[in-house]
Amino acid sequence: MALIVQKFGGTSVGDIERIKNVAKKVKATRDVGNDVVVVVSAMSGNTDYLINLGKQITPNPDKREMDMLVSTGEQISIALLAIALNDIGAKAISFNAMQVGIKTTSDYTKAKILDINTERIRKALQEGYIVVIAGFQGVDEKFNITTLGRGGSDTTAVAVAAALKADRCDIYTDVDGVYSADPRIVPHAKKYDVITFDEMLELASLGAKVLHDRSVMFAMKYNVPLRVLSTFVENEGTLIVKEYKGMENMVVSGIAKKTDEVRISIVGVPDKPGIAANIFQRLAEHKINVNMIVQSVGHDGKSEISFTVLATDLADAKNVMKTVQEEIGASAVEYDENIGIVSVVGIGMKTTFGVAAAVFEELAKNGINIEMISTSEIKISVVIKKELADEAVQVLHARFIG
Amino acid sequence: MALIVQKFGGTSVGDIERIKNVAKKVKATRDVGNDVVVVVSAMSGNTDYLINLGKQITPNPDKREMDMLVSTGEQISIALLAIALNDIGAKAISFNAMQVGIKTTSDYTKAKILDINTERIRKALQEGYIVVIAGFQGVDEKFNITTLGRGGSDTTAVAVAAALKADRCDIYTDVDGVYSADPRIVPHAKKYDVITFDEMLELASLGAKVLHDRSVMFAMKYNVPLRVLSTFVENEGTLIVKEYKGMENMVVSGIAKKTDEVRISIVGVPDKPGIAANIFQRLAEHKINVNMIVQSVGHDGKSEISFTVLATDLADAKNVMKTVQEEIGASAVEYDENIGIVSVVGIGMKTTFGVAAAVFEELAKNGINIEMISTSEIKISVVIKKELADEAVQVLHARFIG
Repeated sequence: MALIVQKFGGTSVGDIERIKNVAKKVKATRDVGNDVVVVVSAMSGNTDYLINLGKQITPNPDKREMDMLVSTGEQISIALLAIALNDIGAKAISFNAMQVGIKTTSDYTKAKILDINTERIRKALQEGYIVVIAGFQGVDEKFNITTLGRGGSDTTAVAVAAALKADRCDIYTDVDGVYSADPRIVPHAKKYDVITFDEMLELASLGAKVLHDRSVMFAMKYNVPLRVLSTFVENEGTLIVKEYKGMENMVVSGIAKKTDEVRISIVGVPDKPGIAANIFQRLAEHKINVNMIVQSVGHDGKSEISFTVLATDLADAKNVMKTVQEEIGASAVEYDENIGIVSVVGIGMKTTFGVAAAVFEELAKNGINIEMISTSEIKISVVIKKELADEAVQVLHARFIG
Repeated sequence: MALIVQKFGGTSVGDIERIKNVAKKVKATRDVGNDVVVVVSAMSGNTDYLINLGKQITPNPDKREMDMLVSTGEQISIALLAIALNDIGAKAISFNAMQVGIKTTSDYTKAKILDINTERIRKALQEGYIVVIAGFQGVDEKFNITTLGRGGSDTTAVAVAAALKADRCDIYTDVDGVYSADPRIVPHAKKYDVITFDEMLELASLGAKVLHDRSVMFAMKYNVPLRVLSTFVENEGTLIVKEYKGMENMVVSGIAKKTDEVRISIVGVPDKPGIAANIFQRLAEHKINVNMIVQSVGHDGKSEISFTVLATDLADAKNVMKTVQEEIGASAVEYDENIGIVSVVGIGMKTTFGVAAAVFEELAKNGINIEMISTSEIKISVVIKKELADEAVQVLHARFIG
C-alpha cells in the first residue's frame, strides 16, 4: 500500500461536474488500496473574483486582510470535494491550513512554508479517511492566515508529500505533461515521459506554466518523485526525477516563454562597489523578487544596471527605485513593460559548446533584437520585444528540437 | 470610554458600497473614544449561494463539510470590512472563529456556543485595533469548523458582548426597531423605544425576524443591554432591557407570524405513559427542534399528538416518525405543510384575564379556523391555514393594539 499525494488545480475543480470527476479519480486511487491525501486549489476564477472584491474597496488593500479574504477560495473547494467524495461512498475529511498546521512565514500574499504538522493528517489516514487539504494557504506563528502566492497549491502538495514521506506526488493539471515548448505556440512540440528536476526547474521558472518553480525546488530538495498529468486526458503524463538514463543525449529539452515581467534599467550609476548590493537589498526588503540582472561595464565612472521583476510588483518597485535613485545619484530610471523572456533549457548544454552562439545567431537571422542576456549552466535567457516572443520560441524550437 | 459590540447583518454588508458605509459607522463609534468590536454576517445571498453549491453535488451533503463550506461567507465579509476600515485610517484586524476561539458543540449546522476565549480580542483592543469578528461560526473541541444555524451572527455578537462584559451590544439590521407587528402586514404598526427581553424573546421565536431568539436568551441570561437599529436610517432603534417603567400598562405588545413550520400529527397513539417522551426524545436525538406540542385527551385507549417543526427539518422528521410509528403501534402520521403560526405577545397578559378568549373570539368572528393552540404566561399561539396568517395578524393587531 502506497501513500500518494494528489494535487488538483483550479481548472480541474472549476465547476460541480469537474469536482465530481475529480472525486471519482481520487476514489479510484483509494480503491486499489492506497492512502490518499488530496491538495486542492480554488475553483478557477474564484481567486481573481476575491482579489477584485478587495480591490474594489481600495487599490492597495491591507495584505493581511487580503490573505484572510483570498484563502476562502480553497476552503470552498476542499469542502465541495469532501462532500462529493462522501457522496460516492469514499470516506473523506477536509482540513484548511490552520487545522492541519501548515506553518509559514508572515509575508502576506507571498509566504513561505516553514513546517507542516503531519499529526492530524496521519491520524485521519489511520482512521481510513481520504484527507483533503487546502492548497495555497498557511498560518504564521501568531495564527494569522497567510497565502503562498500564485501557484502556491503545487508547493503545498509537494511540501505535504515531503512531510509525509509520500511515495509519489501527482500534480493533476489541464496539460497532460511537460512539453519541449507550449503546444499552442509550437503545435508539434514533443511531450516528455521523463525529465530532470533541474530542467523542470528552469522551465517552470521561465514560464512553462506546468508547475510552480518553488514546488519543483521543494521536490528536488526532498527528492519527492513528481508526476505531472492531465485531469481530463488518461495518460501517464511526465515523471520528474533527479536523473535518468539517456538524459545526456538531449542538448536542449525545452523552449520557454514568459511575458509577465517588466524591465527596469537604472542609468548613470556611479561605478562604485556596493551600489548593486544596495539596490537589490532594498528590493528584497520590499519582498520584490528580481529575475534577470545585467550590469553593463562602466565607462566615464558611470554604469547601467538592468533587471526584470514581475509586472505585478512594478508599482512597489517604482517606489523603491525613486528612493534608490536619489540616494545613489543615478541619472534616470527607465521602465519597459513591453518585454518577453525566451529561454532555451537543457541538461545537455552543460557538456555541449556553442549553444549560446547558435541561439543568438538564430534570433539575428530572424530579425529579433536581443535587449538582455542571462545564462546559467543549463539555460540561456534573452529579453526581447513582447510581440516577438512566440516567433522566437518557434524558430528556436525548430533549430534545437525539430 | 465604553466597550461597544456592533453587529451588522448580511443586508448591511450586501455590497462594496454598503461595506464602506458600515466602515464609516464603525469608525465614528471608535472616533468618539469607544473600544469597538464588530461582528459581521456573510454578504446577503452568499450563504444561500454556498449551500446551493453543496446541494448541487448531493441533496444530503455531509454536514461537517457544509460548515467548512458555508463558514467562508463570513470570512469574506470580515476581511472586506477590515480592508475598508484600514483604508479610511481606522486600524482594524479581522479574526475568524478559529482564531478567536469561539468554542461550540459539535452539532454541525446548528452548533451552540460553549465559551469564547477573549484573550486575543482584548490584546488587539489594547493595541488600538478595531476588532472584526466572523459571526455565525465556531470551532469544536477537535478544531473542526461549525456553524450556529441561521441568524447565528446575532448570537455571536451577544456572546462576544457577554464574554467581554461590553457596555452595550448594538444589532444593526435592515429594520429600524421592534414593531408591534410586521409593518408590511400592518402598515400602522407601532415602533417601540423600549421592550423587555421576555417580550422580545417571544416575538423573536415566533417570527418577528428582528433578532434571533437564541441571541435574546443569551442577552437576557448575561443581562447584556441590547439595541436593535437600522444600518440605513439614523434613529435610536429599540432598546431591549430586563424591565422598564410603564411596562405593566401594555397588555399586548406584539403580534407575530411564522410560516416556516410544518405540522406533524401522529394519530391512534396507544394511551400509555412514556409514549410522548419516546417521540420527542427520538426527535431530539436527531437534533430536530420541536416548537408547539398539543396532545389530545385519549378515548378508546387511543390519543393524538400534534407538533410543529421547521419545514427544513421535515425530511429528517419523516424518517424518525416512520420508526416511531412502528415502535409504538400508532395508526398513522399526518403532515401538513400549509400552516401559519400567529402569536399574541405581551408582558401585561400575566395580570390580565380574558386575552386568550378575546383572541379566539376575534379569529372566529373573521372566519379563521384554529387548528392548534399553545399558550405561555405572556403568549398565545395558534396554528391556522398559511394563507390566512396575514389577515389574522391584521385583525388581532386592530383588536389589541390599534
